[in-house]
Order: sequence, then C-alpha cells, then structure tokens
Amino acid sequence: METTKTHIVHGGTLRYLKHDSAVTGTPMTLSVFTPPGDGPFPVLIWLSGLTCTEDNFTTKAGAYRAAAAHRVIVVAPDTSPRGEGVGDDPAYDLGQGAGFYVDATQAPWAPHFRMESYVVDELVGLIDRAFPTSGARSISGHSMGGHGALTLALKHPALFRSVSAFAPIASPTRCPWGEKAFTAYLGGDRREWDKHDAARLIEAGAAAGRYDDILVDQGDADAFLSEQLKPELLTAAAETAGQKLTLRMQPGYDHSYFFMASFIGDHVAFHAERLKG
Amino acid sequence: METTKTHIVHGGTLRYLKHDSAVTGTPMTLSVFTPPGDGPFPVLIWLSGLTCTEDNFTTKAGAYRAAAAHRVIVVAPDTSPRGEGVGDDPAYDLGQGAGFYVDATQAPWAPHFRMESYVVDELVGLIDRAFPTSGARSISGHSMGGHGALTLALKHPALFRSVSAFAPIASPTRCPWGEKAFTAYLGGDRREWDKHDAARLIEAGAAAGRYDDILVDQGDADAFLSEQLKPELLTAAAETAGQKLTLRMQPGYDHSYFFMASFIGDHVAFHAERLKG
Repeated sequence: METTKTHIVHGGTLRYLKHDSAVTGTPMTLSVFTPPGDGPFPVLIWLSGLTCTEDNFTTKAGAYRAAAAHRVIVVAPDTSPRGEGVGDDPAYDLGQGAGFYVDATQAPWAPHFRMESYVVDELVGLIDRAFPTSGARSISGHSMGGHGALTLALKHPALFRSVSAFAPIASPTRCPWGEKAFTAYLGGDRREWDKHDAARLIEAGAAAGRYDDILVDQGDADAFLSEQLKPELLTAAAETAGQKLTLRMQPGYDHSYFFMASFIGDHVAFHAERLKG
Repeated sequence: METTKTHIVHGGTLRYLKHDSAVTGTPMTLSVFTPPGDGPFPVLIWLSGLTCTEDNFTTKAGAYRAAAAHRVIVVAPDTSPRGEGVGDDPAYDLGQGAGFYVDATQAPWAPHFRMESYVVDELVGLIDRAFPTSGARSISGHSMGGHGALTLALKHPALFRSVSAFAPIASPTRCPWGEKAFTAYLGGDRREWDKHDAARLIEAGAAAGRYDDILVDQGDADAFLSEQLKPELLTAAAETAGQKLTLRMQPGYDHSYFFMASFIGDHVAFHAERLKG
C-alpha cells in the first residue's frame, strides 16, 4: 500500500492509501485512521454510499474524535473500482461510485465490480497486515454502504463482532436503487438478489445468534426514506427471526453527512463495547 | 435572507443562506447553525481561509457538536464577494475566495471587495435581526480567516467578547500572501497595511484591556508556518503590549480541516465561557 497523504487528527494518524487490488484488478483507494498509541486496536470498517469515494466520510463524518477516544482503527474504502477500462454508467446510481458491495456476474461489470470479495477477502487481511490490529472487527455504513455493512456482516459473521448502519437500503430487492443495480450486476434471477438483501437475510436467519443487537439510525426527514430505504422491512424481518435490532428514527434528520456526524459517536461507542477483549 | 438549504445536525438547525449585500453590492452566502431550543444564544462568527466558501467549515470542521452543547450560534460567511462583474484573479490567493477581510481601496477591487465592512457593519446586524441572539458575540477563523478574526476583533472591540484563531496569518505585512493581497487591495502605502496586521495592532495596544486572553492554535507540521503564518510575531507583540495570548503549538498537525476539527471544541468552549451573561 502506498500512502498518498497523512494528517494528524484528534491525536491519531489519518492516512489516505492506494493499492493494486488483486480482487478488482484495479487500483483501490481508502483511508485509515489509527488512534494514538501503539495498539493493538480493533477495527471498524466503514462503507460509504452512492457517489462517494473514501473522502466524503473521512472529511465530513467527524468520526475520529470518538475513534481516538475509544481507541478504534477506522477504515473507509472507496465504493467501487474506478478508472479507464472499468465499466461505468452516466447515472449516479450505477457503475463507478455505485458498487453495491456485491460481486457482479454480468457484463460489463463482472471483471472489476467485485466489492463483496474486495472487502471480505482482501481489505480485511490487508489492514491486519499493515496496521496494529487486535483481530476484532466491526462494520458500519451509510445508505448503499449501510446495505453493504448489513449484508456483509450477515453473510460473513465470522469476520465481524458487530454491525450498525445509517439510513441503509434495507431491502434492495424491493426498491428502485437496488432493483436497477442488482439487474445490472447480478442479472434477472431474483433468487440471486435475495442473497444480498439485508431484510431477506435477517428473515432467513442469517448469522443467527452472532449479533446481540444491530443498531440502525434513520432520519425521518430523509428524502429517500419511503421509496428507497424502507427500514420497516428490517424491523419486520428482525421480529420474524428473533434478531434484536434497534431502529432509531431520528426526528428532522435527512440523508446527509450532518445526520451521520450527529450520531457517529454513538455508533463508534456501540462497536467499541463489542470489540473489547 | 433566503434559506437555500436546511439540515438538522446535533439537534440544532443548520441553514445555508443567501442575501443581497448592501456593502459588497453582490449576493453573499453564509451558513448559520442555531442550537436546539429557543435562545437567546450568543454568536460565534467564523472566518474561513483562502479558497474557501462557507461550505468548507460547515461540512468539515465538526463544530456543531460543541456549539450545540454550549448553546452557541455559529455563523460562517463566504470569504469574498463573487460573481460576474466582480474582480477576480487566476491565482488562488487573490480575488474571489481571497477577500482578506479588508475594504479594498484600489481598482479593480474597491467596488465589491469590502469584507471588513461586510462583517462588522452588515453581517452582525443581519444575524441579530434574523436569529434569537443574546447580543454577545465572539470571532474566530483559520489562516486568512484567523488574520480576519484577530484584526476585526482588535479594530472593533465593542463588537466582540473574545477572539481566537487557528493558524492565522499573524502579520500580513511581513509574508508573501499578505504583501500580495495588501498591495492589490490597499495599494503601495505600507502605513495603510499596518492597520490590518494583527501583530502590529497588538503591538500598538489596539483593544488594550478588552480581551483577557487570545487563544491561537498552530500545527507545527503546517507547511505554511515559517513563510506565511509566523505566530512568533503574535507572541512577541503580545509580550511587548502586555496582552495575554496563548499560543498552542500542536505537534504533528498541519494546515488542514483535520487540524481544526481536532481543536474546534476547545475554541467553542473558550468563547462560550466568555459569552456567558
């Protein structure tokens, strides 16, 4: 990994990094915050939403105050492979910046759009080798990245101690963003889609018993709430499956980073408690 | 004033606003954070640095957590007039985005570049009329905006209870950024320049007795430290004049918003204490 920029923030060290990914076959960028001290530290992986690079969360979420206080490494990868020769689409919700944390099986996406494998097979090991990690790891994210955090945590429970989300796409098989992306990346067979749908996974008992609670924050003034996000599908699925899930509807909050900045401290504390020991 | 965007953040309300300024003769933009509750609240005015609009501070500084906790309104204006027919320069350190918080006397800047009068004559009244303010007011800023905060507080002590700065241009008459801007905006007479130089003003006893302390944070890894910022000129002037000034050299910190985000809570608390009652 090549360090492209370094900043001190809240006493810790923030690095912007770049590496050649064997999984996506492209360069991938990310940011990593390490708290003050020598470690070992647990890791929180943050998955961002549509249109984002690693930079949006890094500069706007205000997460490092809590991460320094709780002594947690925070890793924020880019949301897709990028570059010339990598598939793309003029729409903001498909292609570069919109990887949806799945491994695409369809043309033209399949060769590079492998964000699920990138996170669970490559990124976690890369971080553990390059930084003083304790081996304990949690995951969170926003919107498309909330979908990513939930589905990767549910599908790969051995990798994560806890999971939370901000305004996640609760059920991509039942909203326009998800239907469009899954058609493009996974093709027309909706049974394949269900494997990447947080509400369906919870309902089917995925990762049963692994997570004592799943924390979800959602602004009730979020413009995408009723058409795209549908957190009620998460709570219904959790109830069906007997999975504890805490959905906090936050009055007046929208879909922006101001919403995340307001509650990121709660999420870092939620994960830090579960990452101990 | 027209509200162009509203967000809830940390329980308070953040507004992006636009108004036609009688002083600059242009539309001016700003952001205003009001804490939760009815007020009245004291006001902290934040002046940003070169190239910034109101948006950089608003999205990156992470100031609103502390502002909500201390019940302080935070006002962040743009750094210059902008638009067609307004003077500009291709360089990042002159013209639009680089108003330097002075009233220009030279062509082509004089008609619109009147940022000192904009802040002290127009903005403060506008805020007091539109928001539930207590009348108590403080000022802070970063880099060019640190220069602005210090000089406006020293020149207009009746308006402010306290002043602080992050990595301010301590003495624009003695650094390339300041010499270039003051030549353009104020002309060749260096006696005019001294009226807008924080170190010179402190040395001359401006606002003597008004401020019990002036808080300045400066990163010791700031790339602009020795050529442009020169905080040692502030401490020397303060010592000469018997003005208490606390310069905190912060080890490893650079000139970025990560530096500000790390210490903005301290500055909000510093001002909140002096804005009480």
